[in-house]
Amino acid sequence: MSKAWHLTSRPQGLPTMDNFALRELPDVPLETDQLRVRNLWLSVDPYMRGRMNDAKSYSASFQLDHPMTGGAIGEVIESRMEGFSPGDMILHMGGWRDGGVVGLDMMPNKLPAAQLAAGLTPQTFLHNMGLTGGTAWIGLLRIAAAKPGDTIFVSAAAGAVGSAVVQIAKAREMTVIGSAGGAEKCAWVKQLGADAVVDYKGEPVLSGLTQALEDLGKPGIDVYFDNVGGEHLDAAFATANDFARFAICGMIDVYNDGKAQEMKYLIRTIPARIRMEGFIYTDQIFDCMEEFYADMGGLIASGAVTMRETVYEGIASAPDAFLGLFSGANMGKMLVRL
Amino acid sequence: MSKAWHLTSRPQGLPTMDNFALRELPDVPLETDQLRVRNLWLSVDPYMRGRMNDAKSYSASFQLDHPMTGGAIGEVIESRMEGFSPGDMILHMGGWRDGGVVGLDMMPNKLPAAQLAAGLTPQTFLHNMGLTGGTAWIGLLRIAAAKPGDTIFVSAAAGAVGSAVVQIAKAREMTVIGSAGGAEKCAWVKQLGADAVVDYKGEPVLSGLTQALEDLGKPGIDVYFDNVGGEHLDAAFATANDFARFAICGMIDVYNDGKAQEMKYLIRTIPARIRMEGFIYTDQIFDCMEEFYADMGGLIASGAVTMRETVYEGIASAPDAFLGLFSGANMGKMLVRL
Repeated sequence: MSKAWHLTSRPQGLPTMDNFALRELPDVPLETDQLRVRNLWLSVDPYMRGRMNDAKSYSASFQLDHPMTGGAIGEVIESRMEGFSPGDMILHMGGWRDGGVVGLDMMPNKLPAAQLAAGLTPQTFLHNMGLTGGTAWIGLLRIAAAKPGDTIFVSAAAGAVGSAVVQIAKAREMTVIGSAGGAEKCAWVKQLGADAVVDYKGEPVLSGLTQALEDLGKPGIDVYFDNVGGEHLDAAFATANDFARFAICGMIDVYNDGKAQEMKYLIRTIPARIRMEGFIYTDQIFDCMEEFYADMGGLIASGAVTMRETVYEGIASAPDAFLGLFSGANMGKMLVRL
Repeated sequence: MSKAWHLTSRPQGLPTMDNFALRELPDVPLETDQLRVRNLWLSVDPYMRGRMNDAKSYSASFQLDHPMTGGAIGEVIESRMEGFSPGDMILHMGGWRDGGVVGLDMMPNKLPAAQLAAGLTPQTFLHNMGLTGGTAWIGLLRIAAAKPGDTIFVSAAAGAVGSAVVQIAKAREMTVIGSAGGAEKCAWVKQLGADAVVDYKGEPVLSGLTQALEDLGKPGIDVYFDNVGGEHLDAAFATANDFARFAICGMIDVYNDGKAQEMKYLIRTIPARIRMEGFIYTDQIFDCMEEFYADMGGLIASGAVTMRETVYEGIASAPDAFLGLFSGANMGKMLVRL
């Protein structure tokens, strides 16, 4: 009998355990084009917060009292789907549960055997070779069109997407300033290769960023990779060089509180001719998937891009892992191991 | 003896007459590559407010106790510059004065005789065939990549740039919603062809815009042409369709007060994948000048694009004309006739 986390009420602001319930799923026979799967790894990601609202967003809302979904790695234990056999390791969208029935709507894909044999762990396809690494790669190189020599500012640089941005940028000979909260995370971001780190818990973002630029002898930033919004985004507007590009990936600062963002430097959009663009992985990846796998696979194989994982254990811990994203509990990718 | 407006102190917030003084210019003999000019028309434009600050901006700051500069139409009365003769009508940057010496740094250009003969008035080169019309054309068609069928929202639609945007968009079969302040301006924007008008003095911008979209049976806006910033820009974020493009031309709401803009809907950048880009005319025009003159000349000749002029009389009125830009005193292009 599989168990799945259900959304039982729509959170106002920061979600709490009261919004979720772990319930058993009925044990049903497989229909055609279905798999039965035992999950090994679940992904929790900030974008899921948006799916907990009723509002229209780019991802469909979670339905109340239905199992939630999300990225997962599982092992096929029974198959009525062509091309899949018991024992196959798959990436699919039937997460937030320890297993169960996976249909075509959950987009099952076999993990490439060659890359697993070459040493890539299965959960890499939940981060650097999947949503988070792809988001970093697309945002930095395609949306912001960052190039060697550019000065990059990336917020939440100790997060899954941010830490990939730092490493891809360093591998491409860019100067990188990351922001992170607290000494431990900042030390790790430095270790990833960032040229400077702003501790947003220790000082206003704008002062830290200005000081970092001065220390590095750089007049401003050419690219901002935004995971945070708010004060970070405003500091980016304040320090943008002419023709700077902002790739807006997330605004975790405002996902929960829904407050207005106070933008003191937004007006610099005009004199600095700033281009700001929001993007999501699923719009872009199909145009560049081969290039992404080849490039990112190479960066991982060479050790240029690594990923720290913060792992919670057991299906019961999934909401805690998710909530930890908003309290800054993770370094690198937040995962649940079953 | 010519007279020129000098900036005597840097304004804090909204400028006042105390920041300016009209002073005589010394009568000096011409050097090589100089013209003596009698000005006929002066342009006052919102971007000049930025030049009154000491801060680095895209245009050089006005120096204290020096004559200010800006677009002007003049007649050559004496020439030591090759290619120019007395009687030539020129566009140049030696504005804010009734005449004087014009060097190469003021970029004198003869008005095309053929277009004058065809009926274009000289001051057209200070608006629809110059900075304001070019800004409208570039922002709408190049920066925002607006295309037939798109729904366009343009703020300050009764202003020089805004009224050109409305007309160019209508000539290209777009749906246009303009905003303007007060019944008279709104009526004029309707007359220009706008499908709906929001009176921002009569209602919150977002309610007006939402109502207009509903009346027109449109789900949202594809393009926002921003002259205003603040509440207008936030309403654009709130109503943007997926993949909307914002061309940021001005933020007259915040030029003077320097306050933070409260952006409640900025976060929609991500789910709606909005692209926002600041631009200035002089970066772009040299890449597309021929196309602009041909296209805009055609639109003016056919009557598709017209321009209402608000005219102040005499050199003494120039600061009043300029200050009127910020109190909404103008419909169409604000000019000073000498």
